[in-house]
This record gives sequence, structure tokens and C-alpha cells, in this order.
Amino acid sequence: MDLELAARLSQPADTKVVLCVLDGLGGLERPETERSELDQSNTPNLDRLTETSDVGLTVPVGMGITPGSGPGHLALFGYDPYRHDVGRGVLEATGIDFALGPDDVAARGNFCTLDADGNIVDRRAGRIASERSAALVERLRGIAVDGAELFVEPVREHRFVLVLRAPGLGAAVSETDPQREGVPPLPARGADEAGERTAALVNGFAAQAGALLAGEAEASGLTLRGFAKVPALPQLEDVWGLRAAALAVYPMYRGLAKLAGMRALACPGGMEQQLAVARERWDEFDYFFIHYKATDAAGEDGDFAAKVRALEAFDAHVPDVVALGADVLMVAGDHSTPALMAAHSWHPVPFLLHSRHARGGTVQHFTERECLAGSLGVFPAVEVMPLAMAHAGRLRKYGA
Amino acid sequence: MDLELAARLSQPADTKVVLCVLDGLGGLERPETERSELDQSNTPNLDRLTETSDVGLTVPVGMGITPGSGPGHLALFGYDPYRHDVGRGVLEATGIDFALGPDDVAARGNFCTLDADGNIVDRRAGRIASERSAALVERLRGIAVDGAELFVEPVREHRFVLVLRAPGLGAAVSETDPQREGVPPLPARGADEAGERTAALVNGFAAQAGALLAGEAEASGLTLRGFAKVPALPQLEDVWGLRAAALAVYPMYRGLAKLAGMRALACPGGMEQQLAVARERWDEFDYFFIHYKATDAAGEDGDFAAKVRALEAFDAHVPDVVALGADVLMVAGDHSTPALMAAHSWHPVPFLLHSRHARGGTVQHFTERECLAGSLGVFPAVEVMPLAMAHAGRLRKYGA
Repeated sequence: MDLELAARLSQPADTKVVLCVLDGLGGLERPETERSELDQSNTPNLDRLTETSDVGLTVPVGMGITPGSGPGHLALFGYDPYRHDVGRGVLEATGIDFALGPDDVAARGNFCTLDADGNIVDRRAGRIASERSAALVERLRGIAVDGAELFVEPVREHRFVLVLRAPGLGAAVSETDPQREGVPPLPARGADEAGERTAALVNGFAAQAGALLAGEAEASGLTLRGFAKVPALPQLEDVWGLRAAALAVYPMYRGLAKLAGMRALACPGGMEQQLAVARERWDEFDYFFIHYKATDAAGEDGDFAAKVRALEAFDAHVPDVVALGADVLMVAGDHSTPALMAAHSWHPVPFLLHSRHARGGTVQHFTERECLAGSLGVFPAVEVMPLAMAHAGRLRKYGA
Repeated sequence: MDLELAARLSQPADTKVVLCVLDGLGGLERPETERSELDQSNTPNLDRLTETSDVGLTVPVGMGITPGSGPGHLALFGYDPYRHDVGRGVLEATGIDFALGPDDVAARGNFCTLDADGNIVDRRAGRIASERSAALVERLRGIAVDGAELFVEPVREHRFVLVLRAPGLGAAVSETDPQREGVPPLPARGADEAGERTAALVNGFAAQAGALLAGEAEASGLTLRGFAKVPALPQLEDVWGLRAAALAVYPMYRGLAKLAGMRALACPGGMEQQLAVARERWDEFDYFFIHYKATDAAGEDGDFAAKVRALEAFDAHVPDVVALGADVLMVAGDHSTPALMAAHSWHPVPFLLHSRHARGGTVQHFTERECLAGSLGVFPAVEVMPLAMAHAGRLRKYGA
């Protein structure tokens, strides 16, 4: 659905919408048991909700497309993920509340350790403590390059953000992270003129950083990737008339939400605190995005049992989610992260939408295979937003 | 499917296609019984057809999009409803056989009653008798405005059509119907230069009409809405090679069909007459659109029992529909109109296609929930036309 049409059809309503995103929700059946993580989980609360909900499977981007967190979430927020791309650098910067401007190129930085020959030993510098990392960032702030303003900001553990600010910079810059150990960081290269200008500044920064970090046992080097400029996303309030809040612990998801125009409310403490904040701020917002990370983390680790536990832990919060009293409650995933694959995947993701206009009675258990028989079928994740708005009474009839 | 590609792939065949559109076919389960209107209906003939048909659910426009009658039907006729929009004024004008030209802007008019202060008392003038309304229209034909030809045509009860004809007119004109009572009709406003030119003519017409109607007890005022120019729809004959006939009682559906290039055959008497005309004219056409209104009317009234009766009444005609002997017989809906909501809705709509190439044996009853398990799944209504053409042997292989 075109967002300009969406804006024309939107109408105000006194209704609340809650979207719970279980990161990496979808899984795959283990061959020996023929049961997926969801099959294996004991999730009585989700199952009860499923019985009275519209149920289906979302295709995050397209059949066979494995999404990163950006496209996976943007699709659920109603943005065509092929048209609206958000680079990793922008996600990280936005997630730490760095106000990116139109002249900025942002990159995600990782501290790493180097051996005497300059080869990478640990790409994450042993997940160095955040305080130590912040001290190193402070040192990097002394770096100056000719022709751009530089900002270096700590994120958490080994991660930081680099922002270059100057007119005419471009984001078509190759990453300096070789994505493996035993080799040195790569020089940045530009793919066009603006990218070349940026790459030269990046390489200047990296050379000076190398000198400043030399001999640091904890983190003697750094890599940079995800060079990106800020995209101009139509804002949820302008398109759908929603005052939207994000309840997410991790910077990247807070960043994504803010790009869409959500207020990212502080709730570092996880689901209990996320729900407490939702209750406290209930009257201020129409739409609440609640992000749950543990499912993806367990999937990425290839830990089937941990993913089952993460699903069951979420299930324990479902009564409190329901008790919020939303008119439209959705449980969705930004993509699959099957423990069997230890990675994101392209597989369609279970989805449920509960509202008084939902068609229940199609599915008993919230699993990949049962959701196939649900009332919504297999459908693109980008249609979740108009569907939710329809159920919330926020979408006018189209055409005479 | 792109209509230019459709035209390239179309091939002639000596086959007949019948599309029965049950307006507002889809419903919703009542919470107390968990049964929808279709669940509740006794429809042995439809069920028998279902067992030997390709079965699924159509998404009229997009997930969450509640279609008006225009987009709902255009999609079933093979037009992307996001690309081809038909305004209400054009629908009404075409439905009464008014031949709209490219310079015309048409609007739907309603007679209303006004109180002494000029506020609307009844937006439909008590559904004034058609003869009385026609007499008032005759009076309005005396109005002249500077710079455009005017046509005023009666439709039925309180409804009429206004057509303004002049080069350079535009349809971006706001409606004068405030959509509620106790306030006066609004002035028309243009959203662009061509719209402003039209709005000035409309306001001139409305002022003169006000003077002519003043003191009329039955209808002392009027409102205008749905300003529209005629869209240039590719014609069914050019795209699909079909000589197509419409068997519809209500003007709007006849109008829609004519825009697509169908011949609207006279059959004011309802299903029996519609089927009799289809039989009589069988050899002249390849494609028959049969419109059944009662399901939508009952749904709009929120009358669950009446919708059940309307479905059963249609079912009684199914043997005669089958007896027409079409090579491809479809039963579809332009959208859902759940009695529970007393309005059009976005919910996917049951669909069946019977032909000798159909995969039967998937579903026993023609209900929303059973159709989910059908051979076609949940799919966009705009794909109904190519599917029907394939079954009719009218679509060549695509690509080598």
C-alpha cells in the first residue's frame, strides 16, 4: 500500500494498538523430532490468544530474502523494505540518540585486538567492558581530519559509532571489517565520487586511530562498517495519525523506531519494565512497539533449548500484555532465526492479530505449521500495518 | 498482471465464463455461536459446487483495505484497484446510461430537506418517491451557468446526477454534503486550478437550485459529492478478447461493468430475470457478470438473519446458474459486509471457480473458514481474471 494513499485513508480513532515483535521468532523443525522451537515450547497463553485471533505467516521482505533487523522491522512498521533501506551505521547512531543530519555519514565501529603483524585476533576485543571502551572512544575524539567534522560515540561493549559530517559525503563506502580473524582490517574504498571522498577521510581516521590505540592490550585496533546516510522515512504520525511509542532495550531497535517517528521510551530492564512503562504512558500514545530480543539471541547462538526457553519466558508475559487492554494486539517476528541455522533466515514468520473484528477458531497453537491454516494465510509483512489500522477503526473505506 | 501482457497472452476460444458476484459476500462469526452468516446458511447447492471447484479467499484490494463497490468489482474484472479508481459521480452517471465524455465532471446529487435556517433535516429527503424527484430534476434543468453545459438526470428516490461539461474542468472538488444533519450544505472547494474552476460552477448551480427549491416541503435543498471524471479503463474485449455482458439490477454495478466494456443488459427483475436474459443472450457473449445485491444490503443493515436468508435465496438459484453450462463458473464477492459490523470490511472473501481443470476435493462447505483450506489459498482478487481465462483456455503460455 502506497503511504500517500494510507495517509488519505487514515482517520482518527480512540483505539490502542500493541505490536510485540519477538526478534527472530520463526524457527525450523529438528529432523530427529520434527518439532520446531515453537512446537517444542509450552506456551499456553500464546495458544489461548491464537484461538481467538486472525492468524497467518508473514513474509518479511520477499520469498527467499533473509532480512537484517532493519528491513524486518521496517516492513512491520508499514514501509516497503525494498524501497526504504536503513544502514547499520544510521541504526546505531539513532539508537544512542545521536541526532544525525543530512550531511552525516555514520558507521558502526568495533574495537578489535591485533597481533604484532597487525592481523585481527578477536573481532570483538573480548567484548571489552563498556567503561573501558568509552575511555578509548574519548581518546579517539582527539583525532581530526581535513574537510569534515568527526564524532565518535560509545555504544556498548566493543561497539561505537563514527559520524563524519561534511557536505558532499557519500555512503557508498566498503567496510574495513574483513569479517574474519588472522588478517588485517581493510582499507575503505568508495564506489562513487562521494564515496571516495568519504573513504579517504575514513582511512585518515583509521590511520590516526591505529597510532593512538597501538599497544593497548584490550583493544589495539578497530573496524568500521555499515556506512550510511539517514533516510527520510514518512513518519507514523503523518501517515497513520499515530502517536507511537517504542519499548525496546537495544539501541538498534530504538533507533529504527525513532526513524519511523516513534518516541523511544527508556526501559533498559527488559519485558517487565517495558510493560510497566507501557502501562504508565498508556494514555499518551496510540501505538506501542514492544521488542523482545531473547528469541533471536538464542537462535543466533544455535541454541535450540535456549530459544524454547526464550519463547516460554515471553509466553509468561502474555497475560500482562493482554491486560494492557489494547484494541488490537499483534504478536509478530521481524524474521526467522532457526536455531538449526544459527542465523537469520527467509522463512515466513508466525503472526497473530487479536481484535474484536478478528476471525478466531482457525488455529489452536502458535506454531509455524499450524499458522499455515490460519485466517490470513501467508502474506507480506508490509501489510501488517494497514491490517492493524483497519482492525483499529483507523482506516476509511477505499473508493466509492 | 499487467494488462498489456494480458492482451499479448490472450487467445480466442469457444468457451463461456460466468462470474456471480454476491455483493458483500464475506461475513464474520458471531461470538456467541462462532458461526458466520455462511456457516449458518443452508446452501446445499453451493456446497456441492465447492466440492468440485478450486476454492480460496480473495483479498479485494489489500490486507486491511475496505473497498467501496468500485475497487471491489474492478479487481474482480482484472483491474489493479490501486491504479484504476472510479469516482462515485462517474459510477452513478454510467449506471443510468448517461454517455460521459472526456470533458465531463460528474457528481452524485442527493435531495435533502432544510429547516428555516438552511440546516439539513434529512439528508435523503425521506427517500422521496422517484416520480417526485424526477419532477424536481426537471425544474433544475432550467439552471444555466456561465462557461459550462449542465446536465441534471434523475436516478432513483432522492438521488440524481449532475454533469458539468466544459474543457479544462477538474474533479478535485470537495463535496457539499456535510455527512450529517443539523448543519447547512457546504460550499464546494477546488483542490487545484481545474478543481477551483469546477467548484465555482458547482456553487453557482447550487445557489440557483436553492432558490428554485425554496419552500418545497419534500426536498428544499441538495448536496453533491463524488466529483469525478471518466477513467480510461482498458476494455475487456481489447485485453481479454471477451464479448462481455453484465446482468445487474442496480445502476452502480451496471455502470462499473460498462466502464470495463461490458454490455449492460436490461434485467430489472432480479435473479430469475438475470438468468433468463443470460440464457436468451448466451450465444452473443463469452463472459457474463451476474450481480446479486441482497447479501450486501442485509449485511449493511446489520441483519444477520436476513443475510443468511439472502445467501440461501442465492443458493436456490445455483442449479439454474450451473445449468447455463459455462466452461468456467465463479462465485465471488466484491468485499465482505459482515452483519456484525453493519458495513463493508477488509476481510478476505470466499471464492470458488468451477471448471474441468479445477482441483476439487479440498473443501466441503462454502464458508470463510473452510475456504482457507482450499486449493487457491488467500490471494488478490485482481488475479481472478487471469485465473478464469486460463481455465477457459483463453490464455497462452508465457515465455518460451
